[in-house]
Amino acid sequence: MHAVTETHPSREKLGRLLISCSDRPGIIAAVSRFLHEQGANIVDSHQYTTDPEGGFFFMRVEFQLPNLTRQIETLRERFSPIANSFDMNWRITPAAKKQKMAVFVSKEDHCLREILWRWSIGELYADIAMVISNHPNMEAIVAPFGIPYYHVPFSKENRDHATRIHLELLEKGRIDTIVLARYMQIIPPDIIDRYQNQIINIHHSFLPAFAGGKPYHQAYDRGVKIIGATAHYVTEELDQGPIIEQDVQRVDHRHQVEDLKRIGRDVERMVLARAVQWHLNDQVLVHGNKTIVFR
Amino acid sequence: MHAVTETHPSREKLGRLLISCSDRPGIIAAVSRFLHEQGANIVDSHQYTTDPEGGFFFMRVEFQLPNLTRQIETLRERFSPIANSFDMNWRITPAAKKQKMAVFVSKEDHCLREILWRWSIGELYADIAMVISNHPNMEAIVAPFGIPYYHVPFSKENRDHATRIHLELLEKGRIDTIVLARYMQIIPPDIIDRYQNQIINIHHSFLPAFAGGKPYHQAYDRGVKIIGATAHYVTEELDQGPIIEQDVQRVDHRHQVEDLKRIGRDVERMVLARAVQWHLNDQVLVHGNKTIVFR
Amino acid sequence: MHAVTETHPSREKLGRLLISCSDRPGIIAAVSRFLHEQGANIVDSHQYTTDPEGGFFFMRVEFQLPNLTRQIETLRERFSPIANSFDMNWRITPAAKKQKMAVFVSKEDHCLREILWRWSIGELYADIAMVISNHPNMEAIVAPFGIPYYHVPFSKENRDHATRIHLELLEKGRIDTIVLARYMQIIPPDIIDRYQNQIINIHHSFLPAFAGGKPYHQAYDRGVKIIGATAHYVTEELDQGPIIEQDVQRVDHRHQVEDLKRIGRDVERMVLARAVQWHLNDQVLVHGNKTIVFR
Amino acid sequence: MHAVTETHPSREKLGRLLISCSDRPGIIAAVSRFLHEQGANIVDSHQYTTDPEGGFFFMRVEFQLPNLTRQIETLRERFSPIANSFDMNWRITPAAKKQKMAVFVSKEDHCLREILWRWSIGELYADIAMVISNHPNMEAIVAPFGIPYYHVPFSKENRDHATRIHLELLEKGRIDTIVLARYMQIIPPDIIDRYQNQIINIHHSFLPAFAGGKPYHQAYDRGVKIIGATAHYVTEELDQGPIIEQDVQRVDHRHQVEDLKRIGRDVERMVLARAVQWHLNDQVLVHGNKTIVFR
Repeated sequence: MHAVTETHPSREKLGRLLISCSDRPGIIAAVSRFLHEQGANIVDSHQYTTDPEGGFFFMRVEFQLPNLTRQIETLRERFSPIANSFDMNWRITPAAKKQKMAVFVSKEDHCLREILWRWSIGELYADIAMVISNHPNMEAIVAPFGIPYYHVPFSKENRDHATRIHLELLEKGRIDTIVLARYMQIIPPDIIDRYQNQIINIHHSFLPAFAGGKPYHQAYDRGVKIIGATAHYVTEELDQGPIIEQDVQRVDHRHQVEDLKRIGRDVERMVLARAVQWHLNDQVLVHGNKTIVFR
Repeated sequence: MHAVTETHPSREKLGRLLISCSDRPGIIAAVSRFLHEQGANIVDSHQYTTDPEGGFFFMRVEFQLPNLTRQIETLRERFSPIANSFDMNWRITPAAKKQKMAVFVSKEDHCLREILWRWSIGELYADIAMVISNHPNMEAIVAPFGIPYYHVPFSKENRDHATRIHLELLEKGRIDTIVLARYMQIIPPDIIDRYQNQIINIHHSFLPAFAGGKPYHQAYDRGVKIIGATAHYVTEELDQGPIIEQDVQRVDHRHQVEDLKRIGRDVERMVLARAVQWHLNDQVLVHGNKTIVFR
Repeated sequence: MHAVTETHPSREKLGRLLISCSDRPGIIAAVSRFLHEQGANIVDSHQYTTDPEGGFFFMRVEFQLPNLTRQIETLRERFSPIANSFDMNWRITPAAKKQKMAVFVSKEDHCLREILWRWSIGELYADIAMVISNHPNMEAIVAPFGIPYYHVPFSKENRDHATRIHLELLEKGRIDTIVLARYMQIIPPDIIDRYQNQIINIHHSFLPAFAGGKPYHQAYDRGVKIIGATAHYVTEELDQGPIIEQDVQRVDHRHQVEDLKRIGRDVERMVLARAVQWHLNDQVLVHGNKTIVFR
Repeated sequence: MHAVTETHPSREKLGRLLISCSDRPGIIAAVSRFLHEQGANIVDSHQYTTDPEGGFFFMRVEFQLPNLTRQIETLRERFSPIANSFDMNWRITPAAKKQKMAVFVSKEDHCLREILWRWSIGELYADIAMVISNHPNMEAIVAPFGIPYYHVPFSKENRDHATRIHLELLEKGRIDTIVLARYMQIIPPDIIDRYQNQIINIHHSFLPAFAGGKPYHQAYDRGVKIIGATAHYVTEELDQGPIIEQDVQRVDHRHQVEDLKRIGRDVERMVLARAVQWHLNDQVLVHGNKTIVFR
């Protein structure tokens, strides 16, 4: 049972240009002229400026260009002077290139299963190179998908050792994106620094409400009428990173903590799946502690 | 332009019995037997127990009884021994009896308009006896509805004086329910004590996130992807009272604070309207810092 | 990998009483008195009448009674005269008794996976006795759950033969509930008659819009801004049976048919899972072509 | 009480360019280059193509240009050759120009009130030039807003006469947009032809389900679990025009037709308000029987 996302032919010629820079007149004209001159056809384009009068500018363009993969280096070289003239942060990526992804999980399987299933039917375009867990339990779920499973026990005592193993695995696997699919351990700064805006966590509350541990207990105690889940990039401040996606579900007085967990599972897996998909499609840009999600 | 909620004939014979007590076997049997013996027909019934093994029990029964208004005192007398045997908090109310309601408002009209309109078409079954505001602006909106409008300026300096006027107006009007329809002043303990679980506030955030002032600014700064509103009973701890209802709306990175306010207005007025309606229909019971809403 | 729903001790003493009859005064009193006299404690109770003035009455009571399983026959015998006096349709079921369930599936796996997963973590309280498919593809998904998989090819020519095999399997397996988890064949009258209000189908549209084949194509052609899914009991009229549950998701002009299918999958599996859960918990009553769902 | 939407200074320099044409390489480059050369700064831009390989192309650009109103004719002249070279349907409109709007209403006030209120606080940027009704009832609601109210009785007999009056009023008022705010009469072809894609109707169902009369009765009879409302452009085929916006609300078996109407009112007014706002902001393009809504 392997992922069926064999690259669709139309993906082969699809490229993405992502830009962020100070807003100035003429950026869109320069970019679209450049692409036109290269023979590229703009398929989709989004831009956003934090303030039309001198804010920060973000752009994502999807374009078709025959033989993109062969031409991509040339394209980058040719775009470089334009990028410099506007002092851009930028990248051009071929849509056909799969990111390498690692999934971390602890004892709850719902987010892991969701990610694996969506990947298996081609909704998540990536190579899932490994699943890492502090427990052995999930191996049976992962095995049929043919993905290596690493059981790395984690405790206060072996924390540094475990982190070293994690980093080795991630580097050896040339991982681009880390998904914390209900991984119930705090990620140490060593890993966070190395993978800035590349680690996606699902928090089981509607942040900023109920940050920290046991959010469903907190929600129950407060008597809220709606619970939620939040996918965010991991930063050093726990549960404070840029929010990518959130969603909610109604609850009422009859729901005990166990019910909130049950209902919450459905929100968590949907929210995480959407966030991962947008991230893999280069639809998410980070600006300060916020995200721009081009949908 | 007066409210069209002239009492529907079917309402005349409709009564409600509300009960809370320690859970014990036989409560429902005793209550339903009593009502049957009095010739009452149960139309709707809800119960909830915090724990089937010795928790707290809540019940709301809607029943039809011909000539209810004339018989209600007898009914109460007859139910009293049953209530005592189970050590119940209880009340029997005729559905035809309108509560007297006061609406407080400051400078934003959307919640006030929503309440007045729903009242005018009979959705909110109450006598709106007065609108009180710390500003004169809303008088023109209230006037066509034929409801007295009291402009009571409010500042740090005249706080005690204003509170005295408020209390006088409320007591003279024999007010049962106070609705804070975006009233941007803190309600003093004198009024809160006097009207326990009778003051409904609409807070313009998804509590407990963004309690306190300027919640839309807080939401913008945090970069949330969903905003909300919360209707709750007012207690002495600001924005900490029992939550009656909440709802949310999606937003994204393009929405500035002004957009959040605009989108939030629609959530606020819907949430407040629902909470007020349930309160007026005796559908809300308070247990500790939570509500049981029988829907 | 077997379902973890080993019967929770609290379930052993839990029973359900379901009633439907013409509305008359005194039903609730009679029922609650009976249960109290038998030593049963009412844990949850819902009732609904189509019309307080002489309509049809529905009731579902959940009660706790020690040693329920041993006493259930006595309980039924004792309740019988009460039931007769009100001319009730009724049943008393032990919550601990698992229904036997068969799942039919064709080529799409999302609904099947959802059902299997929820069953495996104990959310669906049933014995999944078999999965039947007109294709061999899903066997690998079913195998790890230890459930027999029957591949019964289906075509115009072998229709009667296939139906006979289906009926044999269902009868041999003593199946109570059939779930059509995106089974893309029409169920013949023989099976529908035999399993009235026991076959749950998921239709991939917001019925009654887009009944029949290719609903996502129909939705695309009409340019709707919201798509949905509908779980309903199967009757002889295609897509016309009593609706149990529906839900929706927003779409826009950019979504092609394939996108609608992808987005729709998430709605379908959630809607089907909820409908199956309510059905298994005896929360669904059928009245004419409508359902009463006690939630 | 007049609308507070005095033109915001930033609106004075805001223009919109709307384009539809066959898709060809270079359109975006040509448009953005043109705007840059004119000294215009692109503030927002959306495009959509029905098919990247030779489909139909739609674009909406919002740009800032100082002294726009004085320059707009020059701008149009200069853009004309580019438009011709791509065979575009196009228009350039100053955002500061208010459309003239007429609202039709019958006996239900909720949609009318919503439109008037949103207009009064500046959410709907338009001149509401008149309210036309086949009943006199709504005049008291309209009067405080200072908008002329025309009572034009409508019956089978006077149909042609009424239509002539309608057309005279609309033409004299130079109306751009007609909003049918629960106007319960069929619009004759004379008016539909004259105001193609300029008449917005709110239908009280989730189209295409329950087209035609009494949709809430139909929904009740079918036993749906969700009801909805649909805003669409009016075409000669009743309830078949291009859908602009839809939304829904959950209901259950307890809701009678009157409850569906009550719940539906809230959906109707929100859906209509959003559709009107997008239409006024030139965010809606029509393609065949579908809309492209750039949000």
